[in-house]
Amino acid sequence: MTSFTLKGVSSDTGARRGELRLPHASLPIQTPVFMPVGTLGTVKAMTQEELSGLGFSLILGNTYHLYLRPGHELVRKAGGLHKFIAWDGAMLTDSGGFQVFSLQDLRKITENGAAFKSHIDGSEHFFSPERSIEVQHALGADIIMAFDECPPYPSTYEQTQSATERTHRWLTRCVAYHKEQASEQLLFGIAQGGTYESLRIESAQFIAAQDTPGIAIGGVSVGEPPEKMLEAVSWSMPYIPKEKPRYLMGVGTPQDILQAVAQGVDMFDCVLPTRLGRTGTFYTMRGRINIKGSRYTEDFGPVDPECSCAVCRRYSAAYLRHLYKCNEILASRLTTYHNLAHYAQLMADIRDAIERDDYASFMQTRLAQYGRKNDMKIEEVA
Amino acid sequence: MTSFTLKGVSSDTGARRGELRLPHASLPIQTPVFMPVGTLGTVKAMTQEELSGLGFSLILGNTYHLYLRPGHELVRKAGGLHKFIAWDGAMLTDSGGFQVFSLQDLRKITENGAAFKSHIDGSEHFFSPERSIEVQHALGADIIMAFDECPPYPSTYEQTQSATERTHRWLTRCVAYHKEQASEQLLFGIAQGGTYESLRIESAQFIAAQDTPGIAIGGVSVGEPPEKMLEAVSWSMPYIPKEKPRYLMGVGTPQDILQAVAQGVDMFDCVLPTRLGRTGTFYTMRGRINIKGSRYTEDFGPVDPECSCAVCRRYSAAYLRHLYKCNEILASRLTTYHNLAHYAQLMADIRDAIERDDYASFMQTRLAQYGRKNDMKIEEVA
Repeated sequence: MTSFTLKGVSSDTGARRGELRLPHASLPIQTPVFMPVGTLGTVKAMTQEELSGLGFSLILGNTYHLYLRPGHELVRKAGGLHKFIAWDGAMLTDSGGFQVFSLQDLRKITENGAAFKSHIDGSEHFFSPERSIEVQHALGADIIMAFDECPPYPSTYEQTQSATERTHRWLTRCVAYHKEQASEQLLFGIAQGGTYESLRIESAQFIAAQDTPGIAIGGVSVGEPPEKMLEAVSWSMPYIPKEKPRYLMGVGTPQDILQAVAQGVDMFDCVLPTRLGRTGTFYTMRGRINIKGSRYTEDFGPVDPECSCAVCRRYSAAYLRHLYKCNEILASRLTTYHNLAHYAQLMADIRDAIERDDYASFMQTRLAQYGRKNDMKIEEVA
Repeated sequence: MTSFTLKGVSSDTGARRGELRLPHASLPIQTPVFMPVGTLGTVKAMTQEELSGLGFSLILGNTYHLYLRPGHELVRKAGGLHKFIAWDGAMLTDSGGFQVFSLQDLRKITENGAAFKSHIDGSEHFFSPERSIEVQHALGADIIMAFDECPPYPSTYEQTQSATERTHRWLTRCVAYHKEQASEQLLFGIAQGGTYESLRIESAQFIAAQDTPGIAIGGVSVGEPPEKMLEAVSWSMPYIPKEKPRYLMGVGTPQDILQAVAQGVDMFDCVLPTRLGRTGTFYTMRGRINIKGSRYTEDFGPVDPECSCAVCRRYSAAYLRHLYKCNEILASRLTTYHNLAHYAQLMADIRDAIERDDYASFMQTRLAQYGRKNDMKIEEVA
């Protein structure tokens, strides 16, 4: 049933090495893996060739955005999202739930689903669990996600319990609809439970019992501080079967990823390296820097001397600062490329450390190098 | 003195094949050549690697823009513009004159030079012929241009005569200052004369007599219709020595280039393929198209089926339209890349046709394929 193979587990942490076989990936995906986010069928500022060149073979698309533009029926006509965007690797789509719930004033939730207005033109739409899966079938990603209700942070116990229980009922509907359609896409369930230990445990147990080929831990990026997120992971993890791939949605900074891997998470996605890249922020081995700072004006060396990516090998900090000051497209291009190269290298280093069975010490060294545990909260990013 | 070698001349047109040796180009530049415009030290949306990959080995920088940002002194400290932008090929800088004269309400011209206010922060600056050359020395391009006065179109005979005569006096000052500094950069003179045959001839004769290593024909893109530009070239050309490279500044569309090559022009630059690329306009073998049109919504084939560039080989018209509709950076990237690939192929085809001594027939075929002689005026572009 599952296409996940566990290759090894760290002896001093929960970190694991695995392989995930997916229809559109010519080679198995090596886990732990980071998935760049390609919201509208493009990882912003990157070409598909560049993503492959950096070693990424699994990227994410956002169902809410692709449903509105260009529309899932057009993507279906094109032969699916892989063909439409000319991507040689595998893909995962989210359910659209997270974006719909973020719309706040533009959506109304009932037991049947979520009515919402497009953030682009105000047109009215409705996503039910069945509709989300239907749209994801048209998009055709290798992995699709259950439609869940994401409670905001902070939420009361009662609010969180209500959202978590609805998420469970919706998962049952997603699984039923998905089976009915006999799709070969892998449908992952999403465990919720907010910041409450008992709800996290209950949800992880419920999701595990549905026997989906993978399990995600959700609801941890709607304004939650990183320490709450890691706590939620620690509560959920014991109840998620070892043989399933575990996906921590929307996470995160290199520091978050290092620590979540230690808890046994296999899959990650986050907009940070691409979104922050477009604002001039570089991830380096010594923490995050913003290239617009005047101290880079005459810095004719690479932005990150410890990085061997194509950008750091060729272009100087002073040139990159100049490009940002002039609002040049090349600024976003080069920074995004570097940041994704940094994440790709981080994941490769993480996998190596697990294989050497040296993960605890590797993680401590890296966390110390990166500096402050989390130097920017996710809310400051947008 | 000159680093230009004339390799052959077409028997039925004035078209010529040549080679231009430049300090920063590892191989001689093959002419006729098109130079992509890298206004602020970046050909917008392209990496230096991509430009080289398309076969470009000579690109242009704008002195006015680089003087303001990042400043020529910073570029000097970096070791010159080539090093600052990490460009492996050769470069040409303009004098800044064209941009300063375009500032209209922000500049005041006297015999000594042009006082102007920065379009960015209103700060006050002054460019004289000597100052322009001094700034270009700091930038360090292989080819630098004389500081000239560009009269707007239309101008009266008297206005044009006055600007042309001042251009001549300023050239003398540029040449004197350049010699004094013992720079090895190649200083090109610029022949003016507006839309008046006698002034064009007079100016071409004057510039030719200064014995600069190359000669440009200027003042043809400040609002002049293409037919006026080609007429001006035809008046000037007989007086420009055959052994010198001839550079038609700011030109142009593929149709303009095809016709100007027939008159013996060797060098071109133009913002059209890059600027129009950012608005969704593709140059194709059958003329110009805008990808935003609804007829491309379900066009899952390449934008230009006759093009073999990396974009047309991989991505569909429907995907490109989607990227434009969503304002994605990748839209500008892919279109700019394709348009420059189109120009690179056009120039290669032009050089082949001259070598086969088949230029007149080649040009007619291409002009017919492209369709209307000039399907958009330069003014509509900005």
